[in-house]
Order: sequence, then C-alpha cells, then structure tokens
Amino acid sequence: MNLRDTLCIKDGRLNIGGCDCVELAKKYGTPLYVLDEEYVRQVMRAYLEGLSDYGKYAVAYASKALSCLALYNIVKEEGLWTDVVSGGELYATQKAGIDPKHIVMHGNNKTPKEMKEGVETGVGHIVVDGIDEIDRLDKIAGEVGKKATVLIRVNPLVEAHTHAAVQTARPDSKFGVIIGEEATNAIKTILTKENLIFDGLHCHIGSQIFDYSAFELAVDTMVEFIASLNKQGIKVNTLNMGGGFGIYYSGDDPLFTPMRYAHTVRNLALLLEKSISKHGIEKPFLIIEPGRSIVGEAGITLYTVGTIKEIKGIRKYVAIDGGMFENPRYALYQSKYTAINASRADKPFVQSVAVCGKCCESGDMIGIDIPLQDTQVGDTLAVFSTGAYNYSMASNYNMNAVPPMVIVKDGKSDYIVKPQTYDDLIRNNALPEWFKG
Amino acid sequence: MNLRDTLCIKDGRLNIGGCDCVELAKKYGTPLYVLDEEYVRQVMRAYLEGLSDYGKYAVAYASKALSCLALYNIVKEEGLWTDVVSGGELYATQKAGIDPKHIVMHGNNKTPKEMKEGVETGVGHIVVDGIDEIDRLDKIAGEVGKKATVLIRVNPLVEAHTHAAVQTARPDSKFGVIIGEEATNAIKTILTKENLIFDGLHCHIGSQIFDYSAFELAVDTMVEFIASLNKQGIKVNTLNMGGGFGIYYSGDDPLFTPMRYAHTVRNLALLLEKSISKHGIEKPFLIIEPGRSIVGEAGITLYTVGTIKEIKGIRKYVAIDGGMFENPRYALYQSKYTAINASRADKPFVQSVAVCGKCCESGDMIGIDIPLQDTQVGDTLAVFSTGAYNYSMASNYNMNAVPPMVIVKDGKSDYIVKPQTYDDLIRNNALPEWFKG
Repeated sequence: MNLRDTLCIKDGRLNIGGCDCVELAKKYGTPLYVLDEEYVRQVMRAYLEGLSDYGKYAVAYASKALSCLALYNIVKEEGLWTDVVSGGELYATQKAGIDPKHIVMHGNNKTPKEMKEGVETGVGHIVVDGIDEIDRLDKIAGEVGKKATVLIRVNPLVEAHTHAAVQTARPDSKFGVIIGEEATNAIKTILTKENLIFDGLHCHIGSQIFDYSAFELAVDTMVEFIASLNKQGIKVNTLNMGGGFGIYYSGDDPLFTPMRYAHTVRNLALLLEKSISKHGIEKPFLIIEPGRSIVGEAGITLYTVGTIKEIKGIRKYVAIDGGMFENPRYALYQSKYTAINASRADKPFVQSVAVCGKCCESGDMIGIDIPLQDTQVGDTLAVFSTGAYNYSMASNYNMNAVPPMVIVKDGKSDYIVKPQTYDDLIRNNALPEWFKG
Repeated sequence: MNLRDTLCIKDGRLNIGGCDCVELAKKYGTPLYVLDEEYVRQVMRAYLEGLSDYGKYAVAYASKALSCLALYNIVKEEGLWTDVVSGGELYATQKAGIDPKHIVMHGNNKTPKEMKEGVETGVGHIVVDGIDEIDRLDKIAGEVGKKATVLIRVNPLVEAHTHAAVQTARPDSKFGVIIGEEATNAIKTILTKENLIFDGLHCHIGSQIFDYSAFELAVDTMVEFIASLNKQGIKVNTLNMGGGFGIYYSGDDPLFTPMRYAHTVRNLALLLEKSISKHGIEKPFLIIEPGRSIVGEAGITLYTVGTIKEIKGIRKYVAIDGGMFENPRYALYQSKYTAINASRADKPFVQSVAVCGKCCESGDMIGIDIPLQDTQVGDTLAVFSTGAYNYSMASNYNMNAVPPMVIVKDGKSDYIVKPQTYDDLIRNNALPEWFKG
C-alpha cells in the first residue's frame, strides 16, 4: 500500500477521493474501476513543475495507459499534451477537443489509414518508426496535401531493468531504428522528402523503470547523437525522451509521491542541460511521455468476494467477481499487486491468499500470495494501482462485461465509463445471409 | 499447417471455405477472423457420431472458445448442447434460441445475479463448484421458486500434461471439490437442500490435451467414485467429463481430423463402458464439452503486412495490422502458431521471422520464429488455428478495434461479427456531472 490523503483508511474502511469504498461498491456494483481525480491532477502538475526550470518542454500523457474522454478533458485542463498509438486513440482525443498540435502519434506499424488520419488531423508530431515507413508517410502526406512534421524513433540501445515484455530498447526490438548510422541514414532520407518536416528524435527505453541511471545514460546517448547530426548539418529541434516512470505495485517497489516524480524529471532536465553543455548542442524542446505514473496509482479496483475455497495445506483461494478479463496483468506478466479488505481496512493482515477471478482458466489470478485481513464472502476487496493497463487492456473474455469506471473527488463520484450491458456483448453479432429463412 | 478440403492452396493462394483469402482481405479489410462453417459442422458431427454407440450422451459446445449468435445457431442445428460460464454467455444462448434444458452452466465464482439468471432460465444443469456455493444456490432457487438441477464439479486429481495456466485438475486449483471425502460431503449437503436436485458429477482435467491416458485415468477415477457413492445410496445419473481435446497449432502437435475426434471419444466411451462393468455401476448419461477442437482449426486470421524490419544478425520483424489485442495467446502463454503468406501460398518457406503486432509493447507478438515465404509489405498473411480463444479474448488495447469475423462456406462469405467503429470504442464513455459547464 502506498496510501495518501485521497486514498486512506477512514472509519475502518478504505476511502478514496473522499468516498467510502464499500458505499461505492454498493452504489455502482462490482467489479468497479475507481479513479482518484485529485491524484491524477497532482501527478500531472508535478511533471510540469519538475520541468518548469528547463523552459522548453511538454508533458505528453501516454494514452495507452488509460484512454477515455474524461481523462482527455483533464489532460486538456492541466495543459498536457497527448501521446496516441492508434487511430482509435487519435479519434478519442479529437472527440475530447484536444489541440491536434499537442498530439504525438506513435506506432511501430501505423496502418496507411492511421497515417492519413494523423496527417489530416494535423497532429504535432508523427513519430516515424522505421525506414520503410518514410516513403509511405511522405506519399500519404502528399495525397492529403499537408506536410507532416516528424520525429524519428531511435533505439538508443540502453537497457532498462524491467520485464522483457515491456523493455523496448534492446537491440532485438520491433521499435525504432538503431542509433548511429541507421538512424542517420533514415533522417537523411526524411530530409529529402517533399511532404515531411524533420523535427527531431524520440526514444523510449521501457516501462515500469526504477533504475534512473538508464534514463541518464539514454539522455547522454541521445545528446551525443544530436551533436553528431549537427556536425553533418542536421538541426534537431525536439528531443522526446518517452516515458516509463515506475509506480508502486507491491513489495520493494519504491513508494512514489507526486513530489518524487517532479524531482525525477527535474533531475532528468538537469542531466540534459549538463549533456547539452558537454556536447555543445542547441537546447532542444523536451517532451516526456508519462502514462502509467499519472493514472496507475490513481486507480483502484473494487470487487465483491464471491466464494472462498481453502485447499488444506496448499492454498486459500479468495474468488472475486473480476479477473483476467478486466485485469490481465498477472496472466500476462505475473505482475504483483497489493490489496486490502475495504470493509475491514483497519484490521491486521493475518493471512496470505490467492486472489482469483471468475474466468474458466487456472491462470485467472490477481495474485497468488497477497496479504489480506480476515475476509468473508460479501466483503469488498480493493486492489491497488490498477488505474493503468487494466481498463485499457480489458476484454469480454468468457463474455464477462468490462466493468464501469467512476471518478471520485471531494466525496463526489460519477461514471466516466458506463457499464456494459449484455446487449453490448452481442451488439456487433450478425447472421450470414444463408442462415436467414 | 494442417490443411484440408476446405482449407487449401489454390491458384497459388490460400483458400478457405471456397474463398480466396486475398480476396477476403480485400473485401472485408484486415485484420479479419475467418471461420470455416463446414469444418465446424464436421467436427460437431464427428463428436456425435463417436458417441452414438454409447447411446446416452450429449456433446455440449464450450462457448468460451468462441461465443456469438451465428455459432449458437449452428450448435442448435447440429443438435449439440451448450456449456456457458457466465451470465453473458447464457444471455447470448437465449438470444439464439438455445433450449435452456440443453445448457450446462459453469463457473468457479458465479455471481448471485448469474445464479439467479441460470435458475430463472431453467438451465439443464448448474455445476456447483464449491462447498459454500451450495447454500447460496439453494437460497436463490428458493427465492426464484424453481428447483435447480445440479452437477458437482469434482477435481479428480488427474494431471494432464499441458500449460500450467490451463491445467485445471492439479490439487492446487480454484476449481471444484476434491474427489473422495470432500466431494462426498458436498453431495450429501446438496441432497439435503430443498431447492436443489442432485444429478451427477462433472470434471475437467485441462485444455489442449494430447495425452489421452489422462482421460482414461480420469474416467476410471470418476466411475470408481460413482461406485463409492452408490454404496452410500447416492444415485448418479450424469457424468460430465468436460473437454480439453487438443488441436494442431504447430510443430509436433498431432494432425487432427474430424474422424480422429470421433475415434477419440469412441475410445473414451468404450473405456467408460469397461469401467462401468468393472465397478458395477448403472450406465450414466455422458456429457462431453469440446470447445477449442470445434472452432480452433476452423478459424484463421488474415492480416496485411504493414512493415518489415530486419535487425542484422538478430531477427527479421514482419509487422501485421493485428496483435495481442486480437490474439493475446503468445503474450499470455507463449503459444506457437503456424502462418502462411496467403498471397504467395505455393511458394517455398525460405525464412523464419518474428511476426509482431502493432501494439506499443515488445511482447506483442504472434510468434518469434515462424517459417514463412518471401514476404513483402502489402501481402496477406494468414495465421492458422485462431478460431478459439482469439475473438473471445480480444480487447481494445491501444484503442484498436476488435476485428470483424466472417463465416465462409462453398465460396460464400458473410459477417458473423461486424467491425467495431471508432465510436464503439468510446460508446460507454461519460463525463462526470462536475465536468459539465
């Protein structure tokens, strides 16, 4: 647990954004995603504050962590930019009225349709991910009749210490072009294109990173590369360092606060300035792309305990009314979570249990060894740090509905994602012509 | 590849259900799930045929593999029963007009709402999964005013050799009650309940099983248990042996045909008869629950190759316009798939490539070492054996739309799942009261 003012124990129960979690579960039903608006805003402000001394910067919220209209509204209000990775995310930002110039569009394999949508919308940056994308994008921009401002994704070959599935700067990666000769040639190709405007570099070294020396190394590597480009007469306006800032899930993960994120990016900017001096380059416009750290700890998921099964000498299974359909991260990465019995939040943690879901699959777990209070069927269970990569990865596996999400603030709560109905589950079903009549 | 009459190479291209895959990709766009109706029906008929000599049986299609209205129509036409694992699946069966008496309702943690829906609908069997469910179900049935006919899920402690995430009869399992004393006590409790009618036993030893000796052992174990119950005066009408029949994905997986499934269940029934004689019990009504084997190989997924990236000396990445959002099985289980370049299907396999998706995640792969023909951007790639646990596990990760599914037969094709629009992706989004105005 990494509790805070807006996520605390009150009157023996878990309280988020001034709302009693047991009451939320009763009002909205379970499973229920809950997002703490205040914490989201605090972290956003911390990132902006942390970079303020650097002067030329933008914080682009990485939509893939959690994309919905309400969140884009907050992004807009707080003055952040937005990072999108698909046509769908781009569409949602436009529905929310995000300024296209404040959008960074990513993707290792943007479809031609997505590229066209990006160019037509006039997004601030399209991040070219590979050599053969350059021609395609130039051609599409030509057809649309607009110039596309591009960054190129560079793989700096800096390894962050994290899960292999979320490492993105190993040499063996589907992302980007390798720093040095390959990237230089790609940039030179971009510069020959009539409909592309080269604006700078992007890199992203991974996710859920705690080892900030990797960021340091990446910054210096990128600046050194910019210096080498400058020597060849290539100007680099923008340096996008990506995201990957870790959050607290469990155990030995550091306990983050908004202040700490501010501190982290302030250090990053200082290292950048130092590196700029050392290599004698012009100060680039800096973009960072935090996602998980903005919404991850802001979110919790509430469940009702449905059944408890004790296999003597082996394990106690506490089954909740969610599972891998709404939080697939244990199934995917064996991610670790902390939980609390929201109904008995002030009671001691007296056992370690397996929290399993309701899907017909043994791997459908939230965790196999989660410390918990004495717990009974009907109790409200809260799992922490579920704001990122839960709703955004949710499926209808076993034809379970994706849970709704409510936002909470100052004791108020309201839907930001409404519940799916059974009819939603078969909305797009159809019968072929030859089945009819 | 496990080709067949309705999945073959014709005029240099892959052909399914009499349709050219490149033409399907052009007509419907990609990614596209394609289901071969003829093969689905062949496997269904094979299972029925295989059990016909046994006489008292039902083949219940395990919805979780692939649930949609068109498929339930086929299930109905072919005279199969249906196994559901959630209120959503139950709802879909009723929309498709499946006879409730032919439904088996599962779930390790059915919610009270789901139990109520099951009882109200009058499903043929509700499978009680644990001790503390007995009281709950009895109470709910009492409230509804209908008696619930139940099986009890027994863990026979027979281990099938398969992936740990899909093994379901290890002692350390969230499913069922342990065979012997625990199961006997559970049955005795059921027999005391006013609103429950005890009808028999269910077991399920795992998924994607090739080691049929595990089935043999499970059959004998279950019959022996029935005999011990008989001795205590407990009558067992029904024995549901679950599913788990394997399919061909890649490499050394056996090459299945409908005939082979018929043969497998005929053997199973013979073993059952032998075991019945040996233990001197009355012949039970036999239910089997195949899912994956009915739709798995019937389905393929078509993609367009969007970009190709060769990292010298390391790997070639062929990126397709799908990925873990529509086939998460590599990300979840490191499942292996075979693929073919549908546009150049008669050409030799000359390389081994990593087929990666378009999601912003390194783990977003279909496979890291897939033999393929010479392949260019724009080619149609087909991945085999994707009919089960692909659409049913699909998400909107990265706000990618869930692909549509078409069914093919005798050269005809039509939607059974229509495409999601961008608006579908934000359909349930809402703004909280305090954001407005």
